[in-house]
Amino acid sequence: MNDEHFMTIALQMAAMATGQTSPNPLVGCVVVKDNSIVGTGAHLRAGRAHAEVNALQMAGEDANGATIYVTLEPCSHTGRTPPCCEAIIKAGVARVVIASMDSNPLVAGKGVTWLKRAGVSVETGVLEKEATQLNRMFMHHISAKKPYTTLKFAASLDGKIATAMGESQWITGERARRDGWKERSLHDGILVGIQTVLADQPALTTRGVGTKTPTRIVLDSHLKLPINATIVTDQMAPTWVLTNRDVSDEKVNTLEALGIRVIKTDPHQLDVWLPLLYEYGITSLYVEGGARVLGSFLTSGNYQRVVAYLAPMLLGGDNALSSFGGKGIDSLANTTRLHFKQTEQIGEDLKIVLESF
Amino acid sequence: MNDEHFMTIALQMAAMATGQTSPNPLVGCVVVKDNSIVGTGAHLRAGRAHAEVNALQMAGEDANGATIYVTLEPCSHTGRTPPCCEAIIKAGVARVVIASMDSNPLVAGKGVTWLKRAGVSVETGVLEKEATQLNRMFMHHISAKKPYTTLKFAASLDGKIATAMGESQWITGERARRDGWKERSLHDGILVGIQTVLADQPALTTRGVGTKTPTRIVLDSHLKLPINATIVTDQMAPTWVLTNRDVSDEKVNTLEALGIRVIKTDPHQLDVWLPLLYEYGITSLYVEGGARVLGSFLTSGNYQRVVAYLAPMLLGGDNALSSFGGKGIDSLANTTRLHFKQTEQIGEDLKIVLESF
Repeated sequence: MNDEHFMTIALQMAAMATGQTSPNPLVGCVVVKDNSIVGTGAHLRAGRAHAEVNALQMAGEDANGATIYVTLEPCSHTGRTPPCCEAIIKAGVARVVIASMDSNPLVAGKGVTWLKRAGVSVETGVLEKEATQLNRMFMHHISAKKPYTTLKFAASLDGKIATAMGESQWITGERARRDGWKERSLHDGILVGIQTVLADQPALTTRGVGTKTPTRIVLDSHLKLPINATIVTDQMAPTWVLTNRDVSDEKVNTLEALGIRVIKTDPHQLDVWLPLLYEYGITSLYVEGGARVLGSFLTSGNYQRVVAYLAPMLLGGDNALSSFGGKGIDSLANTTRLHFKQTEQIGEDLKIVLESF
Repeated sequence: MNDEHFMTIALQMAAMATGQTSPNPLVGCVVVKDNSIVGTGAHLRAGRAHAEVNALQMAGEDANGATIYVTLEPCSHTGRTPPCCEAIIKAGVARVVIASMDSNPLVAGKGVTWLKRAGVSVETGVLEKEATQLNRMFMHHISAKKPYTTLKFAASLDGKIATAMGESQWITGERARRDGWKERSLHDGILVGIQTVLADQPALTTRGVGTKTPTRIVLDSHLKLPINATIVTDQMAPTWVLTNRDVSDEKVNTLEALGIRVIKTDPHQLDVWLPLLYEYGITSLYVEGGARVLGSFLTSGNYQRVVAYLAPMLLGGDNALSSFGGKGIDSLANTTRLHFKQTEQIGEDLKIVLESF
């Protein structure tokens, strides 16, 4: 029985709440006394108790003199719940083992300092890589103040999203599209360009997969969103529109009366509205296209993850649409080299995931 | 101990000679008596003994009354070696178990008929799918009278082989390029367009990987191949050029004097020169580009296998070169849906193989 063993269990506790803690991180905690687990806990939802508090409560008196394993540095600030450091010290915990430090500037080392000052033995960095990977969305948004962004495309093996004649339905199969619903459910927001809405009338919902109802966000400079579009009328999830500042008040009022949130900004300046989405609570974003929209995320470097669904076929064609349009990357040194994190056959298609670490 | 068990061993025997039997198929054979293996053999190289002959020789007297497992229907014709059916009957074999029938019109069922007529018990179709897969190159060329063709490309995950500014070296890494040498060694010929030769000065060799020295074939309508090109001067493998009928005799003579084979044909009519290459002994072809050449194989449907090396990055760009150029496929119904047969991380890159079954 060693530290890594118990931290592995704490990480498993944390991972159970995947997709339901936003904007908070995933955190798991295990309380160990005399080599036995006497308490376990996870953070399940923003506003609810932190993992440490749940685990200490289960441990009760046994927490006195115990070691606790926690996947993220315990918080030192009072948010919707009191600081965990206080609870740990009050419970008489002798030793705290931490996987990764909190990059939230409100915590960032202050938790460790507080514990040490109170005489608690603290060890950090146990399975740090695994913990950082688990909370990659949180780690990104809390420091970048922009959503953790996944770019998704579905194409032929050679990257084409339509034939030279424009035919695009369907290149990938139904099982790949179902997997896309699951991917959506891991994000706070789903973003598409207005052309995609007009061409495909997508619902942009998770079809009940997962616990989250991501906000549907349309990039729509000239406010062309039809009032009878599925995402306007179906009431299945919130719908927001990013549009120019000079659009007609009449159309804005019409859409707002239908429950649509109209956000006036500069839709062509991704670096302007991406932090704005973050301010409005979108900590993670799933970008589904079209090619021009995906291209603007690519060239501005605003992505941390790529999900590709590739069909076992070739389409080719100089004039056939590629997955990422616009001007593209000019030099190999200017694109981000990511890593292949997952390759999985889904139905007849291949799902490929790139991540930054 | 059952038929599938012994056929599996025969298939393993066959596979050992991968890449060295062209234009012949891979064949393995196991002789079994009283549930014991008394002889094994494989066909190792064109002109050498067939698998059955090798296995029967090892079995000697024990072949009398034995069962033999052979991955391909025994031949009934006299080629560079006498017919195997004769040897099997002469040895007194009681039962022959066959995986796949020979699609060579010179054999095609005649072997089975001959054996049965001689009183030998014959069973066919044991592990037929595995045997057909193993000899997919042979099965194709012997019936299509065209080379089994593999299309290869190395690109970003979104299918781009260069940035919008034309930068292309290197998108994929060194280990992926090394794997490409191994792929080359599985084919009789390696084909590229003249633009690729002029731009990259490739050697198009296997760097000693494998046993084969594939012929380098350049599609070069106007006979622009420079006499100081690597593939002209290095003498590492035969080099052939496919060119127009009206090119100057002088250039033809110069190249021929340097050992280059100049083939006059219509380079724009793939369906004309592909059967011609087959007549000249190219039973399998590895097409490496450029985009225009790959595009012509795609639109004419002349490919059985695709090998993609994808780098963990995106390049995008409406004007950046895609892997398959030209007019491309017009309708989804007009492209071939293949199957993902292999996905393997090689260095930082991903190798993906599509095959037709």
